[in-house]
Amino acid sequence: MNYERFLEFIIEKGFFWPSFDIYRGRAETGGFYDYGPLGTLLKNNIINKWRSIFIYPYQDFIVEIETPIVMPRIVFEASGHLEHFTDYIVECLKCGRKYRADHLIEEELEKRGIRVRTEGLNENELYELITKYELKCPHCSGDLSNVRKFNLLFQTIIGPYSENIGYLRPETAQGMFVSFSRIYELQGRKIPLGIAQIGKVARNEISPRQGLVRLREFTQMEIELFFDPKNPKCPYIKDLEQVKLRIIPEDKVKKGALEPIELTVRELIEKGYVVNEWMAFFMALATIFLNELGVPLDKQAFIAKLPEERAHYATQAFDQIVKSERFGWIEVSGHAYRSDYDLSRHAQYSGQDLTVERKLEKPVEIEEVRVYPNPTKIKESYGNEASKVMKLLSQVNPKDLVREIEIRGEYLLGNYTIRRDMIFIKIEKRKLSTEKYIPHVVEPSFGVDRLVYVTLENAFTMINDKILLKLPPDLAPIKVAILPIVKKYEYTDIGKKIQKILSRSGFTTFYDDDGSIGSRYSKCDEIGIPYAITIDEKTLIDDTVTIRDRDTKRQIRVHIDHLVQILNELIYEKKGLKQIAESMNLQIIEYSHSS
Amino acid sequence: MNYERFLEFIIEKGFFWPSFDIYRGRAETGGFYDYGPLGTLLKNNIINKWRSIFIYPYQDFIVEIETPIVMPRIVFEASGHLEHFTDYIVECLKCGRKYRADHLIEEELEKRGIRVRTEGLNENELYELITKYELKCPHCSGDLSNVRKFNLLFQTIIGPYSENIGYLRPETAQGMFVSFSRIYELQGRKIPLGIAQIGKVARNEISPRQGLVRLREFTQMEIELFFDPKNPKCPYIKDLEQVKLRIIPEDKVKKGALEPIELTVRELIEKGYVVNEWMAFFMALATIFLNELGVPLDKQAFIAKLPEERAHYATQAFDQIVKSERFGWIEVSGHAYRSDYDLSRHAQYSGQDLTVERKLEKPVEIEEVRVYPNPTKIKESYGNEASKVMKLLSQVNPKDLVREIEIRGEYLLGNYTIRRDMIFIKIEKRKLSTEKYIPHVVEPSFGVDRLVYVTLENAFTMINDKILLKLPPDLAPIKVAILPIVKKYEYTDIGKKIQKILSRSGFTTFYDDDGSIGSRYSKCDEIGIPYAITIDEKTLIDDTVTIRDRDTKRQIRVHIDHLVQILNELIYEKKGLKQIAESMNLQIIEYSHSS
Repeated sequence: MNYERFLEFIIEKGFFWPSFDIYRGRAETGGFYDYGPLGTLLKNNIINKWRSIFIYPYQDFIVEIETPIVMPRIVFEASGHLEHFTDYIVECLKCGRKYRADHLIEEELEKRGIRVRTEGLNENELYELITKYELKCPHCSGDLSNVRKFNLLFQTIIGPYSENIGYLRPETAQGMFVSFSRIYELQGRKIPLGIAQIGKVARNEISPRQGLVRLREFTQMEIELFFDPKNPKCPYIKDLEQVKLRIIPEDKVKKGALEPIELTVRELIEKGYVVNEWMAFFMALATIFLNELGVPLDKQAFIAKLPEERAHYATQAFDQIVKSERFGWIEVSGHAYRSDYDLSRHAQYSGQDLTVERKLEKPVEIEEVRVYPNPTKIKESYGNEASKVMKLLSQVNPKDLVREIEIRGEYLLGNYTIRRDMIFIKIEKRKLSTEKYIPHVVEPSFGVDRLVYVTLENAFTMINDKILLKLPPDLAPIKVAILPIVKKYEYTDIGKKIQKILSRSGFTTFYDDDGSIGSRYSKCDEIGIPYAITIDEKTLIDDTVTIRDRDTKRQIRVHIDHLVQILNELIYEKKGLKQIAESMNLQIIEYSHSS
Repeated sequence: MNYERFLEFIIEKGFFWPSFDIYRGRAETGGFYDYGPLGTLLKNNIINKWRSIFIYPYQDFIVEIETPIVMPRIVFEASGHLEHFTDYIVECLKCGRKYRADHLIEEELEKRGIRVRTEGLNENELYELITKYELKCPHCSGDLSNVRKFNLLFQTIIGPYSENIGYLRPETAQGMFVSFSRIYELQGRKIPLGIAQIGKVARNEISPRQGLVRLREFTQMEIELFFDPKNPKCPYIKDLEQVKLRIIPEDKVKKGALEPIELTVRELIEKGYVVNEWMAFFMALATIFLNELGVPLDKQAFIAKLPEERAHYATQAFDQIVKSERFGWIEVSGHAYRSDYDLSRHAQYSGQDLTVERKLEKPVEIEEVRVYPNPTKIKESYGNEASKVMKLLSQVNPKDLVREIEIRGEYLLGNYTIRRDMIFIKIEKRKLSTEKYIPHVVEPSFGVDRLVYVTLENAFTMINDKILLKLPPDLAPIKVAILPIVKKYEYTDIGKKIQKILSRSGFTTFYDDDGSIGSRYSKCDEIGIPYAITIDEKTLIDDTVTIRDRDTKRQIRVHIDHLVQILNELIYEKKGLKQIAESMNLQIIEYSHSS
């Protein structure tokens, strides 16, 4: 791929570009991108494609919610992000520039031909490398400071009191954990339960680079799937068992054998590469999703993350990676087994009960100590305070009461002394048919912006020095071009009418009546419009138009009244022009250079 | 309306609820709301409805973009938000509590039966009211501090340098202004140009209340429509001229005559209530939009904002208000004529040229002074430095050069002196066919969360103590219920299959095979599912099912194969059950209490 040409193309067509560029040089603007008109449409189509694969077919147990971006400090104390969500930073003691320590070390040593891995090293180990190799500031050659932690949460203050610190969420996930109990109740107290969220997150990178690949603000699509660890089966796995995916399991990563192996989802589970079926379930869907974005399987893989590379909450994790021409393998989604880490922590920090109930196969019998007051004896001692004493008594833990009385012969209840003869002690047997537990979580987490990037990179094709953007038709920002062959009222009027009809039916359209038809076709091909309609002499006579296919350049001629139906079949039912032609008994006009 | 029952219903069905409720009391959690599964679907449907009214029909000149929520400080210096986007705050000197000064004054005086208007008062005037009426802290009766400004921008730091201050945007608008020039180029340098954006914004309210009506974080849908102030006609107005809307114009507001008058868009323009046609255009669309959300016209109005009530950038502004049972009239959108304020300010702060070009009706001839070097004379004085001198000369403003030489006889060019004989001065005439100008802006700005609220309030109906949520079918979170009459495999299997078919065709569905059919219908009515499909004995024989209409309780019986088509017509083409029955020659089963 001609990467320079590709980048030029992205900017020229306005898919996306660095934000605030009129202020570049006057303010910190790194790590933020704007989406232009085509980029916004593409991004939204990718989001809806994700919903159609991860949510709609599983509506019975996966629901989407929306929670705030700004969250109070305690949420991130509980989640561990305040402690763990850090990078290492080092400062030049001369010019004051700040660097991400691991990047600085790797890059400076690479200049000397030395390759080191810094992942998992702590501040002291990083600083040792700096002193060992006598690394200096790449900008001014000044000495470097100690390495320290830098928290990547964007901090703010909520309301007028400066002690009410809040942060921008670095993942949508915490919103689902914090609201888990409520959704669980709403959905009828059923497990498994999936909670999905699509929204903005922010990470205050020390020095963001790599365009859309490392942003300070980006969009995530996440699902927290809550399941019973004693019943980790996924009832939906059987429809996906034959899906093929590629994986580099943990033992291979450890050995440095980074060549992915291809296997079915069934094999993935059987070989024990994943700790539970839910991991496999989402990895299967993620593979299907990437296929649908136009990324071929041989450019996809899952790579196991080693313990030192995993986030603080994860007990198993895979990155779904895609081979990019520009950036090598880049992560587009993370698949983590978060166990009961998050819910347990939020239960602890909030003091709320975040458990759910499991039906026991066999009810168990438990013995419970119960204490009942003996009103006669209590009245004897406390007269008309008796009812007050009895009320207080009912609030005491029976076990404590009985133990005290057994040991000391009496129990001090506020100002009242309870003696053995004032109560009846009974051991009662009770059948329990449920028990409480904190559900475990598997999380697939997608970065939308990287998906936009890889989708475009994979669609970008050059044919005879002309650009053809081979986006899957249902993802294309603009679905239909309307091209009157001649710029005369008879033609353009029909064109405008067709545009109105198609817009109302929900198609994004592009109307163009200017220039040669060849150059207009090229314009459409460049921005990936899958179908172009031409209005020609014949249209004026019999109300038929031609539909041209972007990739094969084939055309069919159809009646205007059938356009909506046929375009729906072409774009959303993925029928080809050939299939349509056959079913409607139409002639295919093959592409020739003269046309 | 039974408001208590309505609120209970919202929470019980999980449309939305206050965020972080497990941490209430342990952190500042006011002003943030979660959307549950039904609320998220409804909100997204409202957003897409807006797109279908404001963007899709006008794709040729209105495009949607997406820009970041975090923006650098200079953006809000330029926009004026750092200076003007403030509320007045007052602090209790005893307990330290902080209050919004205007709210405190109005509420405390209302307790004494005194009504005052505080809008437009400055800090001194507010403080005068506090001293005049000897107002104290409502919580502890302590003395109150001076009144001061409190900026409502959420502040943060971008990256590791503490001087790089950023803010969360309080409106999506600034992203469109900052990127205006680029979009203008992308869209072929055409005016009028509309740039739309849908996204989160944040305003750090001093003490948010009123649920979804006053949030610290919420979603906006905005369009910045850039037009030529010398040609402020809206070419699209004629299709909307007959739209009826209700308005309280500025002169009536001044007189306190707050009864809206009803008129057509044509009359609105002719009577001069709006300063340009673009204001009328968006007010017409906004009225249509609210109609589509189920808000009747007699609950809608536009109210003019008086100069002291308008935002700092606005020269004319209307609030679109909706009568809420609970909150009285509430603003759901703002319509502002922002003139060239924002682009001019960003041009000034960025140093960039943010003008566009207007074709002149008649080209004008202008005279330009040009200066050409005289190489012979320059070489005589400067020898082999001559070419350097000539290059420097080409960079000088010719007007300055000529003036200096006229006055002083020579011009100092760095170290070189330029004398009159070293240059040729020519006056050249040039025809200009374009001129530069900064476009003006009309902005419709919607708050999505308030729209969700008013949509629900208007849909909420109680009939015989039962809830019926009469949402317009295309807005309903769940479109179709699938209800096997009997919980037996023959029935449930068909039900599950129908659910699969409908889900794949993009319908949100609700499957329920538990309980009496009557109670299941009630459940569907409560959450506004417009159509319910029942699988009964007849289904097993002839593959037909019944479709029940939520509002009329009428039913028709149709073949399973026709479901997708018929549901599309019912929901998206807004055909009634009756119309479908007539066109397909089906019998209508009228509702009776026994069924």
